Amino acid sequence: MNVEIITIGNEVISGHIVDRNATFLADAVSAEGARVTRIVSAGDEVGAIATVLREALARADLLVVTGGLGATPDDLTVKAASQALGRSIILHTAYLETLRAKFKKFNLTITTSDEQIAHLPEGAELLPNPIGLCGFRIDEKGKAIFFFPGVHREVKRLAEVALLPFIRERLQGEREVVRSALLKVFGPTEAQIKETVQTAIGAGVELASLLSFPEIHLRVTARGIDPQEVAARMRQTEDAIAGSLGVYLFGRGDEVMEGVVGKLLVAKDATIAVAESCTGGLISHRITEIAGSSRYFLRGVVAYGNQAKEELLGVSSALLEKYGPVSKETAEEMARGVRASSGTSIGIATTGIAGPSGGTTETPVGRVFIALIAESFREVKQYDFFGDRHQVKLMASEVALDRVRRYLLGIAS
Amino acid sequence: MNVEIITIGNEVISGHIVDRNATFLADAVSAEGARVTRIVSAGDEVGAIATVLREALARADLLVVTGGLGATPDDLTVKAASQALGRSIILHTAYLETLRAKFKKFNLTITTSDEQIAHLPEGAELLPNPIGLCGFRIDEKGKAIFFFPGVHREVKRLAEVALLPFIRERLQGEREVVRSALLKVFGPTEAQIKETVQTAIGAGVELASLLSFPEIHLRVTARGIDPQEVAARMRQTEDAIAGSLGVYLFGRGDEVMEGVVGKLLVAKDATIAVAESCTGGLISHRITEIAGSSRYFLRGVVAYGNQAKEELLGVSSALLEKYGPVSKETAEEMARGVRASSGTSIGIATTGIAGPSGGTTETPVGRVFIALIAESFREVKQYDFFGDRHQVKLMASEVALDRVRRYLLGIAS
Repeated sequence: MNVEIITIGNEVISGHIVDRNATFLADAVSAEGARVTRIVSAGDEVGAIATVLREALARADLLVVTGGLGATPDDLTVKAASQALGRSIILHTAYLETLRAKFKKFNLTITTSDEQIAHLPEGAELLPNPIGLCGFRIDEKGKAIFFFPGVHREVKRLAEVALLPFIRERLQGEREVVRSALLKVFGPTEAQIKETVQTAIGAGVELASLLSFPEIHLRVTARGIDPQEVAARMRQTEDAIAGSLGVYLFGRGDEVMEGVVGKLLVAKDATIAVAESCTGGLISHRITEIAGSSRYFLRGVVAYGNQAKEELLGVSSALLEKYGPVSKETAEEMARGVRASSGTSIGIATTGIAGPSGGTTETPVGRVFIALIAESFREVKQYDFFGDRHQVKLMASEVALDRVRRYLLGIAS
Repeated sequence: MNVEIITIGNEVISGHIVDRNATFLADAVSAEGARVTRIVSAGDEVGAIATVLREALARADLLVVTGGLGATPDDLTVKAASQALGRSIILHTAYLETLRAKFKKFNLTITTSDEQIAHLPEGAELLPNPIGLCGFRIDEKGKAIFFFPGVHREVKRLAEVALLPFIRERLQGEREVVRSALLKVFGPTEAQIKETVQTAIGAGVELASLLSFPEIHLRVTARGIDPQEVAARMRQTEDAIAGSLGVYLFGRGDEVMEGVVGKLLVAKDATIAVAESCTGGLISHRITEIAGSSRYFLRGVVAYGNQAKEELLGVSSALLEKYGPVSKETAEEMARGVRASSGTSIGIATTGIAGPSGGTTETPVGRVFIALIAESFREVKQYDFFGDRHQVKLMASEVALDRVRRYLLGIAS
């Protein structure tokens, strides 16, 4: 079943609001096993809306239209539908009664323009909505068109009580079962990932990759008729992908890197302290985004100047003088210093040039040293990150967290 | 000038991501005075994309297409454009050189599929993008089509350097002149702002408000025939709005709170150090997002545990014992401590309960104390913020930065 979603409103096409209705409907409809083939947004103009409706009706099996129902002059969806479908607009008396009752309940006077709301295209079937305006459905040449108001919570309600049950019923028999999973990867490029997991993708399984800088997220979807077979195929595929990606797969679903690191710290009964120069507090910020992080995160130091590196982290001025603040040696001493003073099991440190200025031929913008010090463990690595200041900071924080993750998994180099 | 925005990707039409590109582009294009007439999203399928392109080209004067450029098999925009426009795909040698140089710089091996990226429809003009893949523009029958990669930051960058200047130039000479401004407000609610600025909005001026938690951004647009008259009207309106909002208006255009604070610090030749508990490094992170912040930001301390508060900030254990870590007294000592040890002109500190757990009847989740200490200046305030952990951290960091701004402006309470 091919579905098109149509959202109406000047506020959408002028970019004043994010189109949450389209995203919600697309996700909900896809999860039922129907296929969303297009999303179209048009402004508050009868001709434009009518054209969009006519075009979509020629292509899709089902349309969902949101917005443009109401009592103000820019609510034009009914007029456009009447034009596109060649149906006259008539008074829906049952709807009028409901409206009158509602207004009376709240002691409001109903105006002529309010009553206008009850005028719908001929043949429209009312979709009751206890929390707002009603929606309606029109069947046209074996195809169904759902019209909803534009208010997000009303769209959600009407989808749940009217649209999704309708799709479920239509898909019965031919009903497809859909299972999907989100796998989160850090390290390889998108092309490398696709090459690596290629053989892990069995028949009837789709793979989509979503860039979420600096990570890549894989959406794996399996479809089929038999629920148990689909679930088994999905499990098999997930296992195969996980096997091929190895340590690069760091999380699933709504897991985030700092949350994965947090869980490992708790599991290993470990604690952490952070010394940051170029990342400027971002690593501490990310770690403390996780509820309960006070259990394992004891302190962070953002030592931008040399004085701060000496005073707060015990880096010697001789070492700073000899190797410079952006060096392997300084990174290591920063990590050692913050670990020693806080008494944590792990100390992690970053120092580098986030840019856009401050780079030299010897130490270019993007050069970052990351050090991890733990009991009988020492790792100091040099990186050259690409991008603007924000990206360098983000990338360096991600690598630092990933090094902690690998160390805790016992697979650090 | 009628503009259609086309976003490509299964992740969009299946509702896995919110289409931020469409919203951003619609807003930016509208602000230039062009008219967005339709937004269409299609999946990763050559036929579907080609159809959408052909249809849009028949209607609009300018198309902006995002997504589907890249090295993986589901990047099909080039193929679809070639089909829709009847142009062959050829190697863009200059682009290939750029790609090779980029890969070499980062010591990466370029694969055949990476090199595929440099194959574009015949006649495409490259749009350089220092932070990612290039975009390109194709002129077809007097109409322009801009193709951008799907990564949001890259869309923003390419729009600013290529698309918006193009629109500006094309609209020169056209009858309607449009001037628009973005005003950024922190403090009052949306309803309060609308009431406050109501009388400041003259005839022929539109106001739209965009929520950008925890800030509210106002898009002011003036249209007319005479450029000088429109500019004058715009200036007048901006001044009137600025006058009515007073100190709550903190920035304009692409200014951000931490950038405004940074500029003030430079202007006043002041320096700052930050002591954070509940904000967990976010204030330091935000301050260091600004290029050149090392000039005024000397150090940050994230003192999550009591030991860190004592050792790094000199808060006495007696005070912590007596008032508790989340108290006016502790906040003040943290700010004093970080200022004294770093020798900065300003010390700012936060301590509170970010949640979701850790709250008590006496000190509920969302309670935050913020202290600002400077030469002959002391301010300690108590706040109760609403929302989840992330929102509490964000709100607290925003208020802290805003207090610094007000202090530097000489209008702190």
